[in-house]
Parts: sequence; structure tokens; C-alpha cells
Amino acid sequence: MSPAEITAYLHEQFPLAAAMRIRTDSWDGRTLKLAAPLEPNLNHAQSAFGGSISTLAITTGWMLLHLLLLERQVSNRLLIQKSSIDYNRPIEGMLRAAAHVPKVDELNLFLEVLHRRRKARITLETVVYDDTVPAAIHSGTYVAILY
Amino acid sequence: MSPAEITAYLHEQFPLAAAMRIRTDSWDGRTLKLAAPLEPNLNHAQSAFGGSISTLAITTGWMLLHLLLLERQVSNRLLIQKSSIDYNRPIEGMLRAAAHVPKVDELNLFLEVLHRRRKARITLETVVYDDTVPAAIHSGTYVAILY
Repeated sequence: MSPAEITAYLHEQFPLAAAMRIRTDSWDGRTLKLAAPLEPNLNHAQSAFGGSISTLAITTGWMLLHLLLLERQVSNRLLIQKSSIDYNRPIEGMLRAAAHVPKVDELNLFLEVLHRRRKARITLETVVYDDTVPAAIHSGTYVAILY
Repeated sequence: MSPAEITAYLHEQFPLAAAMRIRTDSWDGRTLKLAAPLEPNLNHAQSAFGGSISTLAITTGWMLLHLLLLERQVSNRLLIQKSSIDYNRPIEGMLRAAAHVPKVDELNLFLEVLHRRRKARITLETVVYDDTVPAAIHSGTYVAILY
């Protein structure tokens, strides 16, 4: 998928991603970068709303795994099972998030378990930036189910 | 604040709460219940999006604390510092969340520290329901700063 296709897919699948105006900055097969403007994601203090920061992080991790499974033509349902985030500093500019492909061993184990048990879990870290400055660290555990 | 005033306040302060169509079910001074319809909060699997579930939980906990501080006329800025959520089952109907006033000792300690140090933290659990069935458990740590 191209960045524009990823953006269109997210807006189609998740109305909230459209409301947040999430768009794809880049996808090079290793790192997925999504972004969202501040305005639809403001809080009472004129910085980014915690719910928006969490949602951007969850979406970035989910989409990265979805892309990896699509590439491998694994028909599956992928859901978030656990999400944890530390908000270390306010975000007052563009919200940006980046998720990286897991280490080879970890990814291979996930795929192997998924094929063997038809269900597998993987945990992925996503960083959310205030433009270029790291502002929040998210850990998401996703479960994939074959069908 | 009446339930209608709480809803209006949330929509005004947080564009995302308006996009999710969050509304106040009830506020009796002890328990705050917020709700959101499924449609603007759907995911690819036609159940509730994890980002929406987290955001509803964060908002419910935040608003409960904000109401408690407003009642006591404490001018403050309240921000979420840490959020953690377990998604135990999918939500396929109305999203509903409830947060309860902390225990007296815990609330008094929070208020005392806030006045003494001008900054205090408190952790609050919020449950998100698939209509009436518990579906996700959220723990939020909020920090209040006097001004």
C-alpha cells in the first residue's frame, strides 16, 4: 500500500481516524509514520488530548502489523488487547507517531504461533512525538486470529 | 453541572468527544456515567475501536475529577499522565463508561497534597461496558496543578 492508500484505508475502517484527520507520513516497509494535526485533537489546555495521543499510537501499531500480515497474505482479524501509555510531555504541535517492524525472531515467532494455533499475540512499542520531540511512549499488545 | 452541561462542556473542550458523540448518562455526585453510540466509533471488525474505548475511559475519569475539583472551587489544570487499558471483550453495542468518586481517604490525600505542593496525582479506575456488560478496564493516573 502507498501512504495515500494507507490513509484512505484507515479513514474507511475507522471513522475516528478520519475525525482526527490522521494521515500517513511514510511507510518504507520497516517504519510506519502517521501524523495528525492539533486542531481536531485539542484538549482544554490547548495541547493534544490524551485520548487522541493514545488513539494515534494504537492506530500506528495496528496498521504496521496489518501491513506486515497483508504483505504475507495472512487472512486474519487483528485486535488490540492491551494498551498502555505514558504521557511524558504535552504535545503542542503536529502529532506524529512511529512504529517499527519487530525484530526478525519476534516476528517469526508471532507468525509461526499464528499458523500453528490460529491465534497469536505480539507487543509493539510506538512513540508519539510533538512534531520531532518524543512526548509519549505507548505499548500495545495485539492479538491476531486466522480465518 | 447537569448531565446536559457536562456533555456540552466536553464537546466544547474536546473536539474528539464531539466526534465520538459522547454524552452524559448520569452524574449523581458519586458516579459519572458517559456513553457513546457505536457508529462513529466503529473499527474494521464492526465492533468498537480500541482508540474510542480508551478515549471514553480517559474522558470519564478526567471529567469525574474535574467535577470534584470544580465543586471544591479548586482552580487547576488536570492532565492525564498514564493510561492503561485491558480490552477483555469486543463492544458491539452502545459504549458506556462509569467512574466512581475515590475513597474519602484517597481523595482527601490528593486534595491535601495539591494544596501543599501545588501538584498532586491520583489514579482512578474506569470500566467500559458493552451496554451493560463489562468489556474493558481502564486505569488512569491524572495530575492536577494548582494555578
